[in-house]
Amino acid sequence: MNVAIIGASGYSGAELASLVAKHPHLTIVGLFVSEGSQDQGKLLSSLYPEHASLLDLPLQPLSDAAYKHIAANADYVCLCTDHHVSVELAPKFLDMGKKVFDLSGGYRLHAASDYDTYYGFSHPYPDWLDKAQYGLAEWYSDDISQAELIAVAGCYPTAALNALKPLQNAGLLSDQPVIINAVSGVTGAGRKAAINTHFCEVSLAPYGLFNHRHTPEISQYLGHPVLFTPHLGNFARGILETIYVTLKPGVTPEQVDAAYQVLANAPLIRLKGKVMPSIKGVVNQPYVDIGWQQQGNQLIVVAAIDNLLKGAAGQALQCMNLVSHWPGELGLKGV
Amino acid sequence: MNVAIIGASGYSGAELASLVAKHPHLTIVGLFVSEGSQDQGKLLSSLYPEHASLLDLPLQPLSDAAYKHIAANADYVCLCTDHHVSVELAPKFLDMGKKVFDLSGGYRLHAASDYDTYYGFSHPYPDWLDKAQYGLAEWYSDDISQAELIAVAGCYPTAALNALKPLQNAGLLSDQPVIINAVSGVTGAGRKAAINTHFCEVSLAPYGLFNHRHTPEISQYLGHPVLFTPHLGNFARGILETIYVTLKPGVTPEQVDAAYQVLANAPLIRLKGKVMPSIKGVVNQPYVDIGWQQQGNQLIVVAAIDNLLKGAAGQALQCMNLVSHWPGELGLKGV
Amino acid sequence: MNVAIIGASGYSGAELASLVAKHPHLTIVGLFVSEGSQDQGKLLSSLYPEHASLLDLPLQPLSDAAYKHIAANADYVCLCTDHHVSVELAPKFLDMGKKVFDLSGGYRLHAASDYDTYYGFSHPYPDWLDKAQYGLAEWYSDDISQAELIAVAGCYPTAALNALKPLQNAGLLSDQPVIINAVSGVTGAGRKAAINTHFCEVSLAPYGLFNHRHTPEISQYLGHPVLFTPHLGNFARGILETIYVTLKPGVTPEQVDAAYQVLANAPLIRLKGKVMPSIKGVVNQPYVDIGWQQQGNQLIVVAAIDNLLKGAAGQALQCMNLVSHWPGELGLKGV
Amino acid sequence: MNVAIIGASGYSGAELASLVAKHPHLTIVGLFVSEGSQDQGKLLSSLYPEHASLLDLPLQPLSDAAYKHIAANADYVCLCTDHHVSVELAPKFLDMGKKVFDLSGGYRLHAASDYDTYYGFSHPYPDWLDKAQYGLAEWYSDDISQAELIAVAGCYPTAALNALKPLQNAGLLSDQPVIINAVSGVTGAGRKAAINTHFCEVSLAPYGLFNHRHTPEISQYLGHPVLFTPHLGNFARGILETIYVTLKPGVTPEQVDAAYQVLANAPLIRLKGKVMPSIKGVVNQPYVDIGWQQQGNQLIVVAAIDNLLKGAAGQALQCMNLVSHWPGELGLKGV
Repeated sequence: MNVAIIGASGYSGAELASLVAKHPHLTIVGLFVSEGSQDQGKLLSSLYPEHASLLDLPLQPLSDAAYKHIAANADYVCLCTDHHVSVELAPKFLDMGKKVFDLSGGYRLHAASDYDTYYGFSHPYPDWLDKAQYGLAEWYSDDISQAELIAVAGCYPTAALNALKPLQNAGLLSDQPVIINAVSGVTGAGRKAAINTHFCEVSLAPYGLFNHRHTPEISQYLGHPVLFTPHLGNFARGILETIYVTLKPGVTPEQVDAAYQVLANAPLIRLKGKVMPSIKGVVNQPYVDIGWQQQGNQLIVVAAIDNLLKGAAGQALQCMNLVSHWPGELGLKGV
Repeated sequence: MNVAIIGASGYSGAELASLVAKHPHLTIVGLFVSEGSQDQGKLLSSLYPEHASLLDLPLQPLSDAAYKHIAANADYVCLCTDHHVSVELAPKFLDMGKKVFDLSGGYRLHAASDYDTYYGFSHPYPDWLDKAQYGLAEWYSDDISQAELIAVAGCYPTAALNALKPLQNAGLLSDQPVIINAVSGVTGAGRKAAINTHFCEVSLAPYGLFNHRHTPEISQYLGHPVLFTPHLGNFARGILETIYVTLKPGVTPEQVDAAYQVLANAPLIRLKGKVMPSIKGVVNQPYVDIGWQQQGNQLIVVAAIDNLLKGAAGQALQCMNLVSHWPGELGLKGV
Repeated sequence: MNVAIIGASGYSGAELASLVAKHPHLTIVGLFVSEGSQDQGKLLSSLYPEHASLLDLPLQPLSDAAYKHIAANADYVCLCTDHHVSVELAPKFLDMGKKVFDLSGGYRLHAASDYDTYYGFSHPYPDWLDKAQYGLAEWYSDDISQAELIAVAGCYPTAALNALKPLQNAGLLSDQPVIINAVSGVTGAGRKAAINTHFCEVSLAPYGLFNHRHTPEISQYLGHPVLFTPHLGNFARGILETIYVTLKPGVTPEQVDAAYQVLANAPLIRLKGKVMPSIKGVVNQPYVDIGWQQQGNQLIVVAAIDNLLKGAAGQALQCMNLVSHWPGELGLKGV
Repeated sequence: MNVAIIGASGYSGAELASLVAKHPHLTIVGLFVSEGSQDQGKLLSSLYPEHASLLDLPLQPLSDAAYKHIAANADYVCLCTDHHVSVELAPKFLDMGKKVFDLSGGYRLHAASDYDTYYGFSHPYPDWLDKAQYGLAEWYSDDISQAELIAVAGCYPTAALNALKPLQNAGLLSDQPVIINAVSGVTGAGRKAAINTHFCEVSLAPYGLFNHRHTPEISQYLGHPVLFTPHLGNFARGILETIYVTLKPGVTPEQVDAAYQVLANAPLIRLKGKVMPSIKGVVNQPYVDIGWQQQGNQLIVVAAIDNLLKGAAGQALQCMNLVSHWPGELGLKGV
C-alpha cells in the first residue's frame, strides 16, 4: 500500500515517515509540507540527520501537482498537520476515495459544539465528524478496520484511556472524577521556533490547567469525568501519567488485576503490575506500559508511552495495519 | 556564631557549608564526615569544584578530637546526616549545650510509634523527640527561636505545607484527602554511588507509593490526610508539587486568595497567583513559589522549591537565623 | 553609581541586571529593550521567574524619553545588544558623557577592516574603535579603569586568553597555531525563538569552522595564530575549552607552572594545575578555571567559565568595578 | 546461528542482546553474568524496562553448567566483559571451538608489551593475541570472516579510524601527530554504581590525558601518531570526535574528497562532506557519520557514532554477519 504523509517535517510526521520506510508492506509515495514552507525542497534527512540514508526524500509543497500525484498514487493519506489544517484537508482526500489517518484533534470529538468550547472554532464538516472513527487501536480495532477517516487518538488520551478503560469497563470506578497528572516530553510541543521550547527555557511546569483539549477527549471515550493536568518535562520524548482513581467501596486488588486482563494479549500493551513504568522504559518503544498499586479504595495507575510512537506515529501505523487487515503491531515490535 | 557541620560531604551538607561561608555573621568551625569515610582529609572543594576558593576546607573525621573541638568552639551543630546517624548524634551535642539543627527526619514526627511504622526502628530518645521543634520557618518561628533541637522540615513537606497550611488554617479544605503529586531532582537521592542515580538510569518515574516517610510528616503538620506520591525527575535540583485539593462546597476564589495572604509578607515565599511555578524558577533560589487555579470546588495548587535550599540547607540557615534573632532571610536573599 | 542596561531581556542582560541588583554600590536606573520589542512593558521577572522579588522591574522601550532618562540619571550604560545595535548605540551614550560597557563584539577588534571580513559590515565609527578599550579584566585593568568605552571581552576569548596569555608572555609558545576546541552552553546562542536552540534539536556538534568571529579576537589579543573550533553543547551555561599547545623545544613543566603564576593572585582565576576543570565547576561561578598537563613539548590546557558570568555579565561588572576604582571582584565572589 | 552473550547486564551486552533478538538469522542461547553477580536470576528486562517483551530472559551465572550449555549449543560467544575477564574467558571458548567476539580491549593490541604499558598487566595469552583479528568491519572484512577470535574495535577508535584511514591510505597526512578531541556519552563508562557517573556529578570534562588505552589502539591501526583526548559528556549515548589534521603541503580539497570515496559504498558509513555530524544524528543509529572542512593544509574531520552500536554491539553484530558470510549490515540498518 502506498502512503502519502502531509506535514512530514514535524516530529510526528518524520517519525511516521521512518516507520513507513521500514515497514515490510508500505511504501512512501510522497512527503509533503504546506505551500510556502521554508522546508520545501529540502530532504527530510537534512532536517533529521538521524534519518540520513533511510529518508533522503524531498519535502514537496502541497501544490495542485501534489494533489494530483496523491490522487493517482496514494492509498493512505496521513495528516501530521495542525488541527486547523487537518480539518480542511481530510475531506479533500476522502473525496478522492483515500483512507485518511488524521493525527490531529480535528475529528476526534463527537459533538461539534465541543470544538467551539475547547478548540475555539466552529467545525465546518460535522458530517465527517459523525463518520470519523476514533483511532485507539486496542479498543476499536473492528471499527477502525472499516473506517474511511480515522481520527488517531491523542498522545495523552492514549496513555490515559488504556490505563482507565479496563477499570471503567469492569465497573470499578466510583463517581469521583479521576485525576490525571501527566508529564510530556518537548517533542509534544512540536518542531517550531518558539521561546517556550528553547533549550534554556524548558523546565518541568504545568500548563493548560482545567482547559486542555485532551480533557474532553479522555472523558468522552472513558465515559467518566476526569481532571487532567498536563506538564511539560525537560526531556525530548515520552509521556508519564500518574493517575489517581477512587475505586468503588470494597473493590479488591484481585478485581483490579482481573480488570486489566482485558489487555493481557494486546501486543503493544505491557502490563507491569506493581512495577512502576518510567519514561526510560518507553522511549523509542511502541508500547503502553501500565502499572498500578492500591491502598484501600485508592488506586494509583501509572501509564507511560513514547508520545511520538504509541502517542502518534506508532498508533497511526497500527491503524493503517488494521485497515490493511494486517496484525496491528506489524512494523512496530522489534523496530 | 560558630557552626559545625556534620555530614558536610553530601549535597545538603555542602550547600549548607557554602551558605554559612557567605553569611555575614556565621563562621564554619569545622566540616565533618563519619570516621572511616573515604572522603576524610579531602578538601570539600575537591568534591565540589564549584566551591573552590570558598570552601578549601578539609573534611575531618568525627573523632574524639573532633567532639572536643566542637564542644570548645561551636555554637550551632548542623546534622546533614542520615536519620540513623542523626538520631544518635543529636543528644550528644545537645548534652554539650549546643543548639542542634538536624536536617534528617530523625526528630520530625511527634509519635515515637510512627518511627516504628515509617522508619523501621524504635526511636531511642523519645524525650528529645518531645522537645524537638519542627523547623518549618514561616509557621513556627517563635518556637524555633527558643528551641534547642530543631528538626528542620523535610524537602517535600516544606513545599506541601507552605502550599496547604493557608487553606487548612482558613478552614477551606473538604474532608477528602489532598493528593500531592511531587517530582524531585536527583540531589534529593543523595550523593552516593548507586545504580538508581546513574546518569543513564535516571528517568521520570514514581517511587514510594503510599508509604513514603514524608506522608506522615505532611499529614501531621497539616492536620489533614494526604495521598503523597513522589517521583524522581531527570534534573539535579528542585521539587515541583502539583496538589489537588477538594474545597468545601461554595468556597470562592476570593476566599482562597485571602487565605494565602497569611504568607504575603514572608520574605522567602513568592505568591504567584494564577501564574504557575516551574523548576527553573526556583533552582538556586531560597524561595517557595506558590501558584493556584480553581474550578468549582477543585483547586490545583502548585508549589516549587530548590530541594537543597528551602528544602534543606536554606531552611536550616533560616532556622539558625531565627535562633540567633536575626531576620530569617539573612544570607539567603540576594545570594 | 547608577546603571542603565540596554537589551536587558536577553540572557546576558538579565544576568547583569541580577548582579547589579545585588551589588553593594550599584543601582539599576532602568532596564531597556528595543522599541517594538514584544517584551516591552513586561517585568523582567515575568521572563525570568527565578528573579521574582529581585527584579520586578519593567522592561522599557528605548524611546526618546528613555534616552532623556538615561542622560539625566545613569553613570554607566551597559549594552547587552547585538553588535549591529551596539555599534550604533555606543556613540550616542558616549556623547552624553556616559561610560559605556559594550558586551557585543562591535568594538573589540582593532582593525576596522576586520569588521568587513569577519562581521560583514563596514564599521561606521572607526574613531571610537580606536579609543575602545578591550575589557579583559585581569590583563588590562589600568587601561580599563580610565576608558570611556569598554569592549567587554567575548565569552570564548575570555577563557582562551586567560589560558594562553601566560604562556605567550613567558615566551613558551612555538610557532605552530594553537588549537582551541571549545564547547559552549546554549545560552551562548541567545534567548530568541529559533529552531537550532529548540530543546529537541540541541545536540553536541561543531559550528563556525575556520570563520567564527572570536578567531580574530583571540589571535589579536594573544599575538599568536589560533585554530578555533566552537561547538554547541547540550547544557544551558558554561564553556569548556580544550587547548592544544605546541611548546618550544625543551620547555619544562616547571617553566609552564611558573608562567601561570602571573595569575596566581587574580581573585577571579582559579589555577587548578593538573586537575582538570569541568562545566559543573564553573556554572554560576564568576571564575576562570585553568588546568594543564604536559607531555614532551605537547601541552594541553583546559579552561572553563560560565559564559554568562566571566564570559559576559560578570566580566562587565568586573570592568565597572575597575572603572569605579573598586576591587574587581566586588559583588562577584560569594554571590 | 546461536549466540551466547557473556556480560549481558552491561550497556553493550544488553544492546547486543537486543540486536541479536531482532536479527533474522541469529538466536540467543543464553545471557550470562559472572558467578556472584547480584543480577543473576533476574530477567534482563527487569534491568532494562525498554526491553520488556523482547528480552524477558534470565541472566544466568557463568557456572560449570553454563559452560556445558554453551559448549553444546552456541556457535558464537560474545564477551561483553571487562578486559581482565575477557582475556581469561576467550581461550576457554576458543578451545571449545567457538568463534569468539570480544568487545573489550583484551586482544586488540599487537604487542604484548603494550598491555604492560597501557593496561597494567602482562598478557597471559600472547599466542591468541597473535591470532586475534581486529574487528574494524569496513577495513578488515576478509580477515574477520575467517578469524576465530575477533577483537571488536573500541568505541573511540571506530570513529577515529574510519575518519582517518582514508587520509592515511591516500598518503595525505603530514608527519605531525593528529589531534583527536573526543566526547563520549556516559554509557561509555559502564553500568555500575560509581560517583563519577552519578546524575548530579556528570558534566563535560576531559579525562585520561595522554594515557588513555585507545591511544595505542588508534595509532597502531592508523600507522600514524595521535594525540587523543577523551571527554565525558552529559548525555547517555554517542561519541563525537573533532579531529585536527595537518595535511601534506599542497593537498587539495579534491584530493581529500577523493580519499573518502574509499568508504562511499560502505553501508554503515555516511559521508556528509561539509555538513557537520552531531550526536543527535547518530544516537540509536548503526552508522559512522563523517564530515570534513579544510583551510589551507589544516583539515578538520568530525566523526560521530553511537558508542553502543557502531562503537560496540553494532560492530560486534557486523563482525558476526561477516563471519557468517551475510551482508555486514544485516539486522542493523532499518532497526
